[in-house]
Amino acid sequence: MADEPIADASAETQEAPSKKALKKAAAAAEKARLKAERAAALEAKMAALSAAADAEDPLKDKYGDAEMVQSQTKSGRRWTRVEDLSGTLADEEVLVRGRVHNVRGKGKSAFIVLRQQTATVQVVLFVDDVHVSKGMVKWVCSLPRETVVDVRGVIVRPESGEVESCTQKDVEISLREIHCISRSVPTEDLPFLIEDASRPETAFENEKAQYVRVGQDTRLDNRVLDLRTPANNAIFKIQSGVGTLFREALLRRNFTEIHTPKLIAGASEGGAAVFRLDYMKLGPACLAQSPQLYKQMAIMGDLEGVFEIGPVFRAEDSNTHRHLCEFTGLDMEMSIKEHYDEVLDVLDELFVSMFDGLNERFAREIGVVGTQYPFEPLQYCRPSLRLTFAEGVKMLQDAGVEVDPLGDIGTETERILGKLVKEKYGTDFYMLTRYPINARPFYTMPAPDDPNYTNSFDIFIRGQEIISGAQRIHDPKLLAERALACGIELPTIQSYIDSFKYGATPHGGCGVGLERVAMLFLDLNNIRKTSMFPRDPKRIAP
Amino acid sequence: MADEPIADASAETQEAPSKKALKKAAAAAEKARLKAERAAALEAKMAALSAAADAEDPLKDKYGDAEMVQSQTKSGRRWTRVEDLSGTLADEEVLVRGRVHNVRGKGKSAFIVLRQQTATVQVVLFVDDVHVSKGMVKWVCSLPRETVVDVRGVIVRPESGEVESCTQKDVEISLREIHCISRSVPTEDLPFLIEDASRPETAFENEKAQYVRVGQDTRLDNRVLDLRTPANNAIFKIQSGVGTLFREALLRRNFTEIHTPKLIAGASEGGAAVFRLDYMKLGPACLAQSPQLYKQMAIMGDLEGVFEIGPVFRAEDSNTHRHLCEFTGLDMEMSIKEHYDEVLDVLDELFVSMFDGLNERFAREIGVVGTQYPFEPLQYCRPSLRLTFAEGVKMLQDAGVEVDPLGDIGTETERILGKLVKEKYGTDFYMLTRYPINARPFYTMPAPDDPNYTNSFDIFIRGQEIISGAQRIHDPKLLAERALACGIELPTIQSYIDSFKYGATPHGGCGVGLERVAMLFLDLNNIRKTSMFPRDPKRIAP
Repeated sequence: MADEPIADASAETQEAPSKKALKKAAAAAEKARLKAERAAALEAKMAALSAAADAEDPLKDKYGDAEMVQSQTKSGRRWTRVEDLSGTLADEEVLVRGRVHNVRGKGKSAFIVLRQQTATVQVVLFVDDVHVSKGMVKWVCSLPRETVVDVRGVIVRPESGEVESCTQKDVEISLREIHCISRSVPTEDLPFLIEDASRPETAFENEKAQYVRVGQDTRLDNRVLDLRTPANNAIFKIQSGVGTLFREALLRRNFTEIHTPKLIAGASEGGAAVFRLDYMKLGPACLAQSPQLYKQMAIMGDLEGVFEIGPVFRAEDSNTHRHLCEFTGLDMEMSIKEHYDEVLDVLDELFVSMFDGLNERFAREIGVVGTQYPFEPLQYCRPSLRLTFAEGVKMLQDAGVEVDPLGDIGTETERILGKLVKEKYGTDFYMLTRYPINARPFYTMPAPDDPNYTNSFDIFIRGQEIISGAQRIHDPKLLAERALACGIELPTIQSYIDSFKYGATPHGGCGVGLERVAMLFLDLNNIRKTSMFPRDPKRIAP
Repeated sequence: MADEPIADASAETQEAPSKKALKKAAAAAEKARLKAERAAALEAKMAALSAAADAEDPLKDKYGDAEMVQSQTKSGRRWTRVEDLSGTLADEEVLVRGRVHNVRGKGKSAFIVLRQQTATVQVVLFVDDVHVSKGMVKWVCSLPRETVVDVRGVIVRPESGEVESCTQKDVEISLREIHCISRSVPTEDLPFLIEDASRPETAFENEKAQYVRVGQDTRLDNRVLDLRTPANNAIFKIQSGVGTLFREALLRRNFTEIHTPKLIAGASEGGAAVFRLDYMKLGPACLAQSPQLYKQMAIMGDLEGVFEIGPVFRAEDSNTHRHLCEFTGLDMEMSIKEHYDEVLDVLDELFVSMFDGLNERFAREIGVVGTQYPFEPLQYCRPSLRLTFAEGVKMLQDAGVEVDPLGDIGTETERILGKLVKEKYGTDFYMLTRYPINARPFYTMPAPDDPNYTNSFDIFIRGQEIISGAQRIHDPKLLAERALACGIELPTIQSYIDSFKYGATPHGGCGVGLERVAMLFLDLNNIRKTSMFPRDPKRIAP
């Protein structure tokens, strides 16, 4: 609920304290003092409850703090996952480790909602002095939310018929034993409740509802908590799936995964927007803005088809919903025999199999994301739609949009084109080829029939660019010519040009933004939702 | 053959020129001039040969320079791979794209060794004026090595019975047509010949043999050429396989692949040996020395099991055979129920399946590497051998090696222990557990029964460490205590400690060096052989 960033080492980056800063520091110190007090109070209360239990409760061994898990034992006990509980286990005893998502007491009873990743189950206690004592209920009711507990109990059908508040609706756990594995801070000191952070977007549409809305920065400042929401758990499993399916598709075609250096001398693609640093005694260096040169060198080294999944660094001051200063690049490069359509054929098969794979393997996760952030499933066709840039321009012009047929198209125009394409062809995923030469980097192969165009492409999901690619110039003479025409000084790229002097295979490739693919597949509104610890001009922590 | 680095952008890192530097520059300029002359001479010769052909050769369309591949056409032609050629194709016409590995003329005939990755085939020309003209032989003999050509010809059985110089021994190609796709510089201007760079280590043992030996720096300065050797082609396919098999094993166990930031505020693990830089307006930052904090945060975010494959940066001035300033980390972290043996069980299954997988899927590549760098196959047992540190110490002491039972063991002692283990247990792969507390970082969980030890492990291949791991402290109080005991100021790690305050799952994990695994699996003598573009204190290019 409070919007406080986790204190961290970046504190040292702050400047000399102003009056305002001192006031802020004093307030923070007071807050910290109160927090410490509350933590001590909780500690005392739990200790008192345990002491009382030790004194008189015959069930005292059935609850309380477990010894810290420190590899003391291998007991052979087996824990059941919350998502695996079902009616077929009725009357059986299970052991479950989960978090106290919520707990409420009601006279001689208590109800815990126990959470494990995206699944929840209700745990019920009724004082009967056989399995559950008064002390046990009191102790349970004192547990702060997010506490990790081991629960042993019997699977039963809920008397009320169905547990509405849990994902496990047909079964609940009748408690026999509960021990605390790791206690959280007092509930009131949690930066926010998972409940609040998990609420469906639609809930906020009702103006009468007075829900706490957890903002983006509060979430990111407390990412450890934020990641526990079911939607985030699902998002990062899907993000993992995007990488896996990208890889699988290319490994099927005998591509080799490579790892190229991020520390490089000079700038990887032009000089703008690079992070600079000192490379020990060798002088200045910078962080790679793309593996472009290196993946092309791997092809010149006869690896034929290569890909890399790794960080890409852009020191750009872009505060948009779709830019990051560090993101994960899915890069590929391959030798071609005749035509850059060979690259598009690979990408076509790759993305269709990725979308199929996500829909099949992550159907449950996609559903979980949709519960919080409702969205329309991605429409795509097979083979994928390919349009030339000129065709795209014509569609835009026919719709009354002004556009330079030999320039680039901006983000907004791309969105409009995406809508026009969706209306006409019914797909959210398409390829736009043959961009004007002015819109592409110097190393892009010009079109064979018209020097105004290139053998290049962008690929879009829901009207937003996720991929840029092209046939590259493999002829050192033409490469030097094009560099000069683009105002690049040859000595700065001589080693790049030299790479093609020892017999160069024609080749092409592309770079994909992993976070963008995940964001747009799920139709999320901000790339920070698909980057686990995003870096932008205003954020370098946690 | 010459040992000249490719000129590159790092030139700008040089200091003001000294006399020596000026002399060197003058020599380089003269060399460049001679090179340019030779290139022009080759150009003129090839043009003259083509002109002569155009004038009088009825077979003139069957050879010469092809138009630059620029996506002009999709002809539907199919290229056969050199490795797929075989006697079953006898008398059939095939189209192959490969490099001129070697060419020699002999009166009215010529023989090309055509190379494609690790495979070679002989292409033969005999002047008969039906398929092959004199002009054709002359033109072919003028092709510099490494030139990329399209060859059309008929598969025949060699008259001599077997082609000794090629991997394709039972078939050769009788030439019908040959076109140059991309010409290399003149053969004499290649930095070295692939033939020289591919020679088996054993060849140099014969003192009478006068072979050119291509040094490590020459190779790395000209990595594009160096990567073309069969051994290197195979090494990087095997390296790719290490990553793939690591991932497959963890995905089978439902781990999630994550991508954590490399740009961080402060130092990730202690302050030494980090690369520092400015993060735009937010002030100083550094490059992550490991994803330690972030992967633990992902576990605290309830992802349960995570892994990352990404670059790790160490600004250490270590010029050894096994250290790099940028390497690829295979990191994993997982929640545990009771004991860090749960982590070792995962790693045991992971590495055994990785070694099995490498031996099965990359048997041919392993053979190719062994041809140049002979080695004994890795010995490993199932389940893997686990020894405690104390047991290791005893083995060393029994063998007369002095070692501090509560200290760490050095690289040389590790090697000796590796030999002792191999002798006693017959395995090159084993796990050493329960290290002394003085030998591990502050966040390592102490052993439950003896404060001198920890719940930690290293894993070794052929006596060299590839993995370091442990159960981590998940209790914020103990974590703060241990940090203080290790002399760390708490404010610098407060956000790290805070991550465990909202209910912390017990967990453990490890970091693996990808290049080390590949190096030691293949028993190579230098980590630069398994890093495509290595970074060390003396190298940041290419």
